[in-house]
Amino acid sequence: MPRHPEIAPAVVATPASPFSRLARRAAESGCRVHPLHIGDTWHDAPAGCRMEDLHGAAIDGLHRYAPVEGLPSLLSALAARLTARHGVSTAPEDVLVTAGATGGLGAVLGALTVPGDEVVVPAPYWPLVVGIIRGAHAVPVVVDTLAPVDPVSSVARLEAALTARTAAVYVNTPNNPTGAIWGETTLDAIVALARRRDLWILADECYEDYAYAAPHVSLRARAPERVVSIHSFSKAFGMAGNRCGYVVGPPGLAAELRKISLHTFYSTPTAAQHAALRALDGPGDAFVAARRSEYAAIGAEVASVLGVAAPEAGTFLFVDLAPRLGHRPLWPFLERCADAGLLLAPGTSFGPYPEHVRLCFTAEPPEAVRAAVARLDDLLRSV
Amino acid sequence: MPRHPEIAPAVVATPASPFSRLARRAAESGCRVHPLHIGDTWHDAPAGCRMEDLHGAAIDGLHRYAPVEGLPSLLSALAARLTARHGVSTAPEDVLVTAGATGGLGAVLGALTVPGDEVVVPAPYWPLVVGIIRGAHAVPVVVDTLAPVDPVSSVARLEAALTARTAAVYVNTPNNPTGAIWGETTLDAIVALARRRDLWILADECYEDYAYAAPHVSLRARAPERVVSIHSFSKAFGMAGNRCGYVVGPPGLAAELRKISLHTFYSTPTAAQHAALRALDGPGDAFVAARRSEYAAIGAEVASVLGVAAPEAGTFLFVDLAPRLGHRPLWPFLERCADAGLLLAPGTSFGPYPEHVRLCFTAEPPEAVRAAVARLDDLLRSV
Repeated sequence: MPRHPEIAPAVVATPASPFSRLARRAAESGCRVHPLHIGDTWHDAPAGCRMEDLHGAAIDGLHRYAPVEGLPSLLSALAARLTARHGVSTAPEDVLVTAGATGGLGAVLGALTVPGDEVVVPAPYWPLVVGIIRGAHAVPVVVDTLAPVDPVSSVARLEAALTARTAAVYVNTPNNPTGAIWGETTLDAIVALARRRDLWILADECYEDYAYAAPHVSLRARAPERVVSIHSFSKAFGMAGNRCGYVVGPPGLAAELRKISLHTFYSTPTAAQHAALRALDGPGDAFVAARRSEYAAIGAEVASVLGVAAPEAGTFLFVDLAPRLGHRPLWPFLERCADAGLLLAPGTSFGPYPEHVRLCFTAEPPEAVRAAVARLDDLLRSV
Repeated sequence: MPRHPEIAPAVVATPASPFSRLARRAAESGCRVHPLHIGDTWHDAPAGCRMEDLHGAAIDGLHRYAPVEGLPSLLSALAARLTARHGVSTAPEDVLVTAGATGGLGAVLGALTVPGDEVVVPAPYWPLVVGIIRGAHAVPVVVDTLAPVDPVSSVARLEAALTARTAAVYVNTPNNPTGAIWGETTLDAIVALARRRDLWILADECYEDYAYAAPHVSLRARAPERVVSIHSFSKAFGMAGNRCGYVVGPPGLAAELRKISLHTFYSTPTAAQHAALRALDGPGDAFVAARRSEYAAIGAEVASVLGVAAPEAGTFLFVDLAPRLGHRPLWPFLERCADAGLLLAPGTSFGPYPEHVRLCFTAEPPEAVRAAVARLDDLLRSV
């Protein structure tokens, strides 16, 4: 046990982010920095949904605590939206507004696991999810599902990883980092597996609005009794800094999740909730419609430059550099990129992928992303 | 272990807030509702520090992620403020900006305890702290320190509660709910105890700006090597809904706490950080100066009506109703209050105090608080 001056061993053992070292090199490079390692959009939030549009005189309690579960008006709007999108009748009290999807997943892990429980995480995965699972003192069980693997074998791999301690399977579709859309066959097989083995399904669908190659398939309609679905305004509406997301699950669950969020961030920022409500009232969907084609185009263009398949969805490419690096180690190459102002996320942040990198093609305007990827291609040619 | 449809037993066993039932009764009463059960201020955030003052065109990345540890400009401003206030040289990297004090304490508990560790909590305590400790799978050990008890005996009681599993002592001064300021003698004794027993000290000083009867004494200067100090903009500057606080501790600690906040709320809302930075630049201290005398006056007035001592600090009275209720049970009386539109927090939320209530005398403008307390006095007379 930690006694002063000790700190919890698991926390000390968690490596600090490698990005900061790369970011420092990039900052000192003298080159224009292209921060393609982060997941964000260069677009500002839609007009009418920005902080400057929120006036304390017109919005009662704008700077005061919101209810822990969320503003009643936002919960109602989300319930209507989820009922329509998922085809599952959703009451406002089935929804919990959270400090981003991160806060939402934290509440879910806190309520659905006890220390030592296992959560199966298909890789490549969103980097924070393994830390969120560990934060609940549960154990992430990582299963490689990177292509080429057919849906049936992929789910068979997940099944092989189940133990008596498995509480849940995490599914992230569209996927960060690969941009893959998980299809009906795969999702049906996961649902059948979860039903057979009494598992919860944690459906992280933060990129649901940015599907290009095929429609996004939401999991909740397939198993509303066991799917806990996590969503975000960050990616959809260009408001990642506001820290607002939401979670929906079977009736009664949100009241239990609320007990966790009460004790981790209390309430979701009030202004963020008002901004989200305004976005839901029209500007958000218009923003998404405009962004979707733009994101699809730059994603396909960047993929073509790098000689990989266009992303099916999302805002990332996950690229295996092994063929171009000739299996030389990745880190020195990432340092050379940083010295040229280009920041990429190393594949090991997403699972057992020491020769991959992730790049975000929406972190900067298209012309800047084009310049960054041309630079990457040059660096790869000169290896 | 939880399997679908089960939920973690400790979470299910956590009672839902009793406030919602009382709040519903008050809403249905037809009377004007006086929400004196919450801890907040009716004053809006200072002019210049509101959402409408934050313009995306002038503030780069206003709606994008902030760095996990906080905006560099805010960290620098806080380091300067903490150096001056605590008399302890503080670097920006010693500070972590968090989703309110709640997020800050969550990060602290996550980093300084492992499951099963104990944290000594003097009662009366801030209600959320026991849930935050349990959220880290640590154990709150509650020690009654309500008056009449002298400082030496009070610390002796804390010492008697220490075990081989005690990792830290939590100290909240000025205190929520009592409004007591812990004096130098008590704090020195706690520091000596912590040094003797290798304990961390978690100093929750969210009400530091609202001390009336005596100066607030900060703990950090007394033991900078082991005090982790938790602060909030919510109470100081009327921006509770923004969800912005901060934590400071010995060098190296903030980097470990950051690993926890990264996985619970990712970053503190960007707009909230800009609002805090503006408040620190002058308007915040002017706001505090104006509020302090106003709060002290209404606190003393309300205390006098109820026949109790004026609060030394803070925004609450913690009142023992036993003499006036003649030891009749509290809950039916709270329901009668709710039926008259008056919401009070039951003493059991703050420790073993089934006959106390907490009321916040800053939740509404003074004239409304006066009306509410007159109503309370009437109800007490008619018991």
